[in-house]
Amino acid sequence: MEKPTKRIRNFASDNNSGICPEAWESLERANQGHSPAYGFDTYTEAAHAAVQDVFATNCQVFFTFTGSAANSTAVAHLCRTYEFVICHDSAHLALGECGGPEFFSGGSKVVSIPGPQGQLDRTGILTAYEARHGDFQFPAARAVSLTQATEMGTVYSLEKLKEVSDLCHELGIWVHMDGARLANALVHLECDPADTTWRAGVDVLSFGGTKNGLANGEAVIFFNHELADGFQYRWKQSGQVASKMRFLSAPWTGFLNSGAWLRNARHANRCASRLETGLKPLEDIKLAYPRHANSVFVQLPSEVEKGLRMKGWSFTTMPNGTVRFTCSWDTQDVDVENLISDFCELTKIGGNKPT
Amino acid sequence: MEKPTKRIRNFASDNNSGICPEAWESLERANQGHSPAYGFDTYTEAAHAAVQDVFATNCQVFFTFTGSAANSTAVAHLCRTYEFVICHDSAHLALGECGGPEFFSGGSKVVSIPGPQGQLDRTGILTAYEARHGDFQFPAARAVSLTQATEMGTVYSLEKLKEVSDLCHELGIWVHMDGARLANALVHLECDPADTTWRAGVDVLSFGGTKNGLANGEAVIFFNHELADGFQYRWKQSGQVASKMRFLSAPWTGFLNSGAWLRNARHANRCASRLETGLKPLEDIKLAYPRHANSVFVQLPSEVEKGLRMKGWSFTTMPNGTVRFTCSWDTQDVDVENLISDFCELTKIGGNKPT
Amino acid sequence: MEKPTKRIRNFASDNNSGICPEAWESLERANQGHSPAYGFDTYTEAAHAAVQDVFATNCQVFFTFTGSAANSTAVAHLCRTYEFVICHDSAHLALGECGGPEFFSGGSKVVSIPGPQGQLDRTGILTAYEARHGDFQFPAARAVSLTQATEMGTVYSLEKLKEVSDLCHELGIWVHMDGARLANALVHLECDPADTTWRAGVDVLSFGGTKNGLANGEAVIFFNHELADGFQYRWKQSGQVASKMRFLSAPWTGFLNSGAWLRNARHANRCASRLETGLKPLEDIKLAYPRHANSVFVQLPSEVEKGLRMKGWSFTTMPNGTVRFTCSWDTQDVDVENLISDFCELTKIGGNKPT
Amino acid sequence: MEKPTKRIRNFASDNNSGICPEAWESLERANQGHSPAYGFDTYTEAAHAAVQDVFATNCQVFFTFTGSAANSTAVAHLCRTYEFVICHDSAHLALGECGGPEFFSGGSKVVSIPGPQGQLDRTGILTAYEARHGDFQFPAARAVSLTQATEMGTVYSLEKLKEVSDLCHELGIWVHMDGARLANALVHLECDPADTTWRAGVDVLSFGGTKNGLANGEAVIFFNHELADGFQYRWKQSGQVASKMRFLSAPWTGFLNSGAWLRNARHANRCASRLETGLKPLEDIKLAYPRHANSVFVQLPSEVEKGLRMKGWSFTTMPNGTVRFTCSWDTQDVDVENLISDFCELTKIGGNKPT
Repeated sequence: MEKPTKRIRNFASDNNSGICPEAWESLERANQGHSPAYGFDTYTEAAHAAVQDVFATNCQVFFTFTGSAANSTAVAHLCRTYEFVICHDSAHLALGECGGPEFFSGGSKVVSIPGPQGQLDRTGILTAYEARHGDFQFPAARAVSLTQATEMGTVYSLEKLKEVSDLCHELGIWVHMDGARLANALVHLECDPADTTWRAGVDVLSFGGTKNGLANGEAVIFFNHELADGFQYRWKQSGQVASKMRFLSAPWTGFLNSGAWLRNARHANRCASRLETGLKPLEDIKLAYPRHANSVFVQLPSEVEKGLRMKGWSFTTMPNGTVRFTCSWDTQDVDVENLISDFCELTKIGGNKPT
Repeated sequence: MEKPTKRIRNFASDNNSGICPEAWESLERANQGHSPAYGFDTYTEAAHAAVQDVFATNCQVFFTFTGSAANSTAVAHLCRTYEFVICHDSAHLALGECGGPEFFSGGSKVVSIPGPQGQLDRTGILTAYEARHGDFQFPAARAVSLTQATEMGTVYSLEKLKEVSDLCHELGIWVHMDGARLANALVHLECDPADTTWRAGVDVLSFGGTKNGLANGEAVIFFNHELADGFQYRWKQSGQVASKMRFLSAPWTGFLNSGAWLRNARHANRCASRLETGLKPLEDIKLAYPRHANSVFVQLPSEVEKGLRMKGWSFTTMPNGTVRFTCSWDTQDVDVENLISDFCELTKIGGNKPT
Repeated sequence: MEKPTKRIRNFASDNNSGICPEAWESLERANQGHSPAYGFDTYTEAAHAAVQDVFATNCQVFFTFTGSAANSTAVAHLCRTYEFVICHDSAHLALGECGGPEFFSGGSKVVSIPGPQGQLDRTGILTAYEARHGDFQFPAARAVSLTQATEMGTVYSLEKLKEVSDLCHELGIWVHMDGARLANALVHLECDPADTTWRAGVDVLSFGGTKNGLANGEAVIFFNHELADGFQYRWKQSGQVASKMRFLSAPWTGFLNSGAWLRNARHANRCASRLETGLKPLEDIKLAYPRHANSVFVQLPSEVEKGLRMKGWSFTTMPNGTVRFTCSWDTQDVDVENLISDFCELTKIGGNKPT
Repeated sequence: MEKPTKRIRNFASDNNSGICPEAWESLERANQGHSPAYGFDTYTEAAHAAVQDVFATNCQVFFTFTGSAANSTAVAHLCRTYEFVICHDSAHLALGECGGPEFFSGGSKVVSIPGPQGQLDRTGILTAYEARHGDFQFPAARAVSLTQATEMGTVYSLEKLKEVSDLCHELGIWVHMDGARLANALVHLECDPADTTWRAGVDVLSFGGTKNGLANGEAVIFFNHELADGFQYRWKQSGQVASKMRFLSAPWTGFLNSGAWLRNARHANRCASRLETGLKPLEDIKLAYPRHANSVFVQLPSEVEKGLRMKGWSFTTMPNGTVRFTCSWDTQDVDVENLISDFCELTKIGGNKPT
């Protein structure tokens, strides 16, 4: 181990990162004296205001501890037990919550369908909607869940989002967005947060903070106020209401108001972009999808994959065999350069490359 | 407001308190570099070890964010939908989780029964068990949940715990303990943590940290290993698995290993004891239950209650009209003395008391 | 056993009775040739029309196999998991469905409250509604379930029904009626079916046929059409949609159109009335509640109870010790006379009574 | 409509048929006098014995009203909310219960996979089992459900059943059989009922009677007694316990003891076989799968499909475009001959055929 400082930050997931300074500072400031419990405190009030400022609307905000909880409680609130939600077959909703949406909803089906680059399109949704429409032997469609940025590192364009949500509303079904990496999508789109959410027809959003610099922080955000009816009860019943709420809510204030959330995302996207640029010339390495957000997906020879792991890198091998490298707010340039350098060394081109 | 510093810490609940220094320090130390997600990190390993040390046994530990989640997932794991759990009619399980146990279990009944000083006894349990035993028109008993310390500020003696759990095991039903304030019970009993839990027949424990100095930290602890089977899936499905687990687990390490958890509880109990002593002589004030832990319950004239609120104190009026004053790890002696002094001023004896 | 033909029909429950001739005839007629499945057949169409005629309104009708299913699916459709239904503490909903309402709703609480003669009143409902209103640590009230006739053999007056349902609608909660013995209530009230249901403010009815002469036949009836939205899916998901629907639906046609359902109920009530008259003079026997419908509840010495059982009678001892004798559509006058005669023989007055 | 008597029995489904004489006779005999409720009657006792005789073992028998209920409650009893059941992607469990298995289990996933001729095989099951095995972000496999006869009209051989169930038991997961058309499979296999169920490794069976001559009659049968633990409560909670149980149970006695159930199935299979033989020579008609049971699946030109419907025939067009013709216990030879004749008339060969 001659180079021990080399792979100290890994590329397995952005949830391997720590708490960013702006969130930490807010947390520290909130740890003063006594404060009312269950969210009736000034820190939480300020955090709600910060979220409403970000989305430039009077949305209803419910902080949760995990993305699984945000997604599952949102779906449960939209769908009754005999209704289904449509999502992409790579969606966390289908693959990463251990059946949380089915559990919290009491049995709603999660109907997952394919679509290019991790994205749903009108045809796919319409087909799933119509397949058994009106036949009570199969549940009825009630919602669509879009992941922005997607699980394949791409980002829905505003046009596509609008197209999809228009279809949903014509069909009378709701639009949920899993925004675990919404910030990464925003900096790619260079648009306002409102543009990619409620202005694009999103009714309910799971807004992610954890992967982007918070300790444990997500939020269910209702842009459609009617849909929020009763959600405070569901939220409590689901074990997601912090008694010492300030420690869950306060970090959002510094995180959002300081602009850290966008800076963090921009940094992570930039690192991924640099990685993409570095890998492109390598003969044996194939980029699997266009890179929009903070992850690079590649197809690579198994000996390269093995070699990287032996050099101490961690990353994620997906079910379909592609390999994902995810950058975080705290990934450093040196990490990316070291990774690229090891890639070069391990591939044919790299082998030929003078050092 | 001539005395603005007087009522800065309130007595409404121990969850109005902050994060204690030992927990904070562990949190800070955990916020270094990258760490694997979902609990496969060294901080979590250390926290598990700390819990196992405390209970002097190789128990299985699952950290959760809230006590509602700990109680609800534990009950759901013990009971099938057609089975019921017996608890005291003051129990958080029945009154404070917004139906979480019924929800997480998919419909199990929470059968709440009376009992002196917030405690279940053999007779009550046996009656509830036998009432419809063997009649499939009513669910079957499967578990008993004991709250230690109780919601009335009392503490089960080791003898009573043993008596109750022996009965349960004779009947073939499980013993769950809601230990949101277990530390306060322990310092009252002056016994080992093992004595009031697994040695007393407890199968599953909800172990509370939040009220005693953590930010958001509870744990479901299985002393009975067979019962833990599959719980990691339930835990994930329930939205309680932190992706950045270290920030949930690490604080436990400093909190437990330093002994802070017992010091905090001892301090809170001592404050409550001082308050009890201060209120006892007051003619119009009646102590509702013996004080064992960190809360004092009193019956008091409504004008005194009103007067205290006007002086800026916060406290909790229970459904039965008694009033609860709860001390925390960060309650200061001056808070208690100021409260006693205001009490004196507002009561007859106080009114007569020379200043 | 000198009189073996004496106790051939028992008084344990009206569900010990058989299928009445009018229902049987319809069943037999439906068993001809082929018919479309799942309710798209002419027999079911006719049965719907028969129900709508009875209630003189265009209600929505869903036939179910059991009263447990009718009650549980109705409650599940009215309440979300974090809402509760209020019922009398003698209600089948609370005591006789093995937790079905909690199960089908995915965790809704059944809040059962006392009330004179098996009936809820405004005060009781208001108290249950207000107890925790607006506090998200406890579920929110969403529905009230009234049992007509009650489990204590009494019948709500139209005035009382109206009073209660007016309160519910002021509070914004729904009115469900468990009408397992609605026919018995109707013949007591001598009113139109509409009067004691939708005209009295009932939103959803569980309409019972089984106890009154069908094989297995209940119906969930929505007078409030909006509430029925999606119920056909819930009904199917709940395993209550007969593939050969005609055999569930057809018997209703003869049963209702012939007037048998009211004749049957009138006969059962008359038998109970005769029994009441026969028992009234007996010194040791105390009528527990006024008799309105087809059951007589008495308090009686344990040696009389024992004596009756030894003579071969069956009846039901309630949890509170009262004893219920229930008459059916097929109870015969001789059964009642024989029972009275045995009562007389076993009681002091009876002992003295010249034969 | 010169031939009005021609298409009086249709081929849409075997659930379009009526009640067979042997079942009717038992029903009629059960409608005598009074009988204890909830299954504590002699008719039900006899029906249990009849089922146990059929399977030549002391199995536990629970009668249900529908196949949806039998399948859904069985799955719910085998799987906890975070476990999944594997079935064929044509299975009723996945497509025909409106999400009943997910609902009754409180969220268990139904993982449906492809397989030739409607049958699961070892490879498919193993792949589904291993895909995420040990990863708590996805539910764990707990059961496999096999449909015998399959939804494509084929029948698992005893060897294949054994192979599959051996694999399941090696993996530690349970084997459920959806036997809605078990009788049709049995007469094809010409084996004992025990051979294709418990002797072939089936733990729990949904045993169908409705499609084969009962009014509404299915049964959940536990060959594995441990798995039945508590099922009587689930059965009641699920709204499947008839109060007048004799009318659900009694028809089974005549149906089974008389041998009608096998005669009915043999007749239906024979009709299907005749239909198959009649269609084979037709040039434009292609048999989609080998015919083992009582259904014939064909691919046919849309004008032929249209023509048949115009002639008054009803049958079922499957999602994949194949067309199913199902024979029943009460299909008559003339129905089959008429259908074949119309087919001939509508196809080229038929068109050329001299009349």
